[in-house]
Amino acid sequence: MTPMPLAIAAAADKAIVWENDRLYLLDQRVLPAEEVYLEYHGAEDAAEGIRSMVVRGAPAIGITAAFGVVLGARRAWASAGHGWKAALEPGLGALAASRPTAVNLFWAIARMRKVIAGMADDGDPTPRLLREAQAIHAEDVAANRAMGELGAALLGERTRVITHCNAGALATGGYGTALGVIRSAWAAGKLEGVLADETRPWMQGARLTAWELAKDAIPVTLLTDGAAASRLALGDVGWMIVGSDRIAANGDVANKIGTYSLAVNAKYHGVKVMVAAPTSTIDMQLASGKEIPIETRGAEEVLCCGGTRLGAQGAEVWNPVFDVTPAALVDAIVTEKGVVENPTAEKMAELMGR
Amino acid sequence: MTPMPLAIAAAADKAIVWENDRLYLLDQRVLPAEEVYLEYHGAEDAAEGIRSMVVRGAPAIGITAAFGVVLGARRAWASAGHGWKAALEPGLGALAASRPTAVNLFWAIARMRKVIAGMADDGDPTPRLLREAQAIHAEDVAANRAMGELGAALLGERTRVITHCNAGALATGGYGTALGVIRSAWAAGKLEGVLADETRPWMQGARLTAWELAKDAIPVTLLTDGAAASRLALGDVGWMIVGSDRIAANGDVANKIGTYSLAVNAKYHGVKVMVAAPTSTIDMQLASGKEIPIETRGAEEVLCCGGTRLGAQGAEVWNPVFDVTPAALVDAIVTEKGVVENPTAEKMAELMGR
Repeated sequence: MTPMPLAIAAAADKAIVWENDRLYLLDQRVLPAEEVYLEYHGAEDAAEGIRSMVVRGAPAIGITAAFGVVLGARRAWASAGHGWKAALEPGLGALAASRPTAVNLFWAIARMRKVIAGMADDGDPTPRLLREAQAIHAEDVAANRAMGELGAALLGERTRVITHCNAGALATGGYGTALGVIRSAWAAGKLEGVLADETRPWMQGARLTAWELAKDAIPVTLLTDGAAASRLALGDVGWMIVGSDRIAANGDVANKIGTYSLAVNAKYHGVKVMVAAPTSTIDMQLASGKEIPIETRGAEEVLCCGGTRLGAQGAEVWNPVFDVTPAALVDAIVTEKGVVENPTAEKMAELMGR
Repeated sequence: MTPMPLAIAAAADKAIVWENDRLYLLDQRVLPAEEVYLEYHGAEDAAEGIRSMVVRGAPAIGITAAFGVVLGARRAWASAGHGWKAALEPGLGALAASRPTAVNLFWAIARMRKVIAGMADDGDPTPRLLREAQAIHAEDVAANRAMGELGAALLGERTRVITHCNAGALATGGYGTALGVIRSAWAAGKLEGVLADETRPWMQGARLTAWELAKDAIPVTLLTDGAAASRLALGDVGWMIVGSDRIAANGDVANKIGTYSLAVNAKYHGVKVMVAAPTSTIDMQLASGKEIPIETRGAEEVLCCGGTRLGAQGAEVWNPVFDVTPAALVDAIVTEKGVVENPTAEKMAELMGR
């Protein structure tokens, strides 16, 4: 993938761009110091872009996978003609194996597979699949806009909020889930400001959330993950607002490591907890959070920071990338289909039945 | 201060060394990558060594201040003769202004001032003051040994513990407070292993605690501060064991930022909380933790990590260096004079009256 600055990039915070029949991903590993788009040509390298976290954030992973299918299908048609469906399988497999936790990935692949299954094999599948990927992308942004309104409406009065990780434009097709609620609330005059956990080990808060909010001139204050408890104790924070990588059928929420710690502290300090996520993040196949696969990544992510080895030799490392917040700690799950307050299995089933 | 490797340094983890009539401080800013001792010549540069965190940890700060008084007195005698007491005042002021939270600093200066007040001004004060500083140092190690035994005795069965920051040999005259309990418990066969919060922003856990424990072959696992909650949820951690920079008269505990977050999560998960600190850390002048001065440090500590700027431009930063854990969340305060379980103002007064 050759780094390629795009004219449209500089003023935008678009994680995923389809232009000139090519897929471009903003390299989120190097933000905010550098704003660089990498170009992708096939399903396998799109999968590597997901695995290596060039793109991250559950909805963005799903959208990227959909475009990865388009790239794979175009190559498969070019190389195998009428045999394109079989030729596409390795690429589909690579995409599905890229990262295990975000269910949006599997949701998007399943949606693309459904379209593939309904297509004849005697014509170039690329245009039809591209329209589907673009629909997935556009629907995600529309869902975020809807969630922004629904979530902002829950913030009864002007308040300060705290967030964790990056659930913004960079994590989605645009606008963001948690940051979408924050943007809508800010536009409605409901926000004093935003506190952002820096979110070790990967610093999505410090690097990505702070970047997005500062660009939008929304007041953002960075703090270390461990400092959040004493900040909440000051009493001026009304809501914790986060996204999610997977929500179980009972409303248990998997999100970036550190979310559960913040939720426990939110509960302790009387701060409400809102999880904003599209229904493509909800996995009704899993009864509870215990069943959500939790990715672990390399020790170097914890032993190093800012490219420097800090951790002492001889230490083991525990690096799960996500944790699970039980439904009991969640005050509201905000989706594009509506809001579930104090989630239970029954309420989640009702939401998903609509 | 000229960096000067010392022969004794390589095999030891001594934070403070008096040798050849000189004070040497192990530069804790660069551990574990480099093991370097800096040499100090006067009270003002000893104060700078404290301010800049070459040495840190409340008991170590107090001991360093005591040796700083010795250095200051030697210079004052050399420059002002019989006027040495007045000539020493600026240095005493610099030491007292170096950092505001650790009460051991003020305790040590007060103890040295008491000796100074009882001395004639017509002889070199250095030998007498040096003996006092060395007594403070030795008493701290003895206190840690005593605390180690008392704290280890509270760990009824073999268990895993979690710690935060560095309350080890590097934070004290030697052996450590929280790490002293951990060392004693390990020697008694009571420990499965130690979990160590990396402790952002300054990484005392990753750099210093992991270094000390790995040197002693005590199994240590590093995790990010936000990951501790989900680790505690696994159910195999019996105790959280930490040190303190200042304990109020009612048992409220100030310690490294992130301690309070961990204590809230410990309570939530049924993990007991032990604070190990010498009585020189207890401040009976302050009724509660609300009165403890909480140092704040520069934004760059949060915006940067490993020497690299990570935080986006335009973000504010909140960087208090300490937080306060209310006595209600503390199961035991372990001091060299004894243990206070479920601390209250009455129990603390009884301890300090002994």
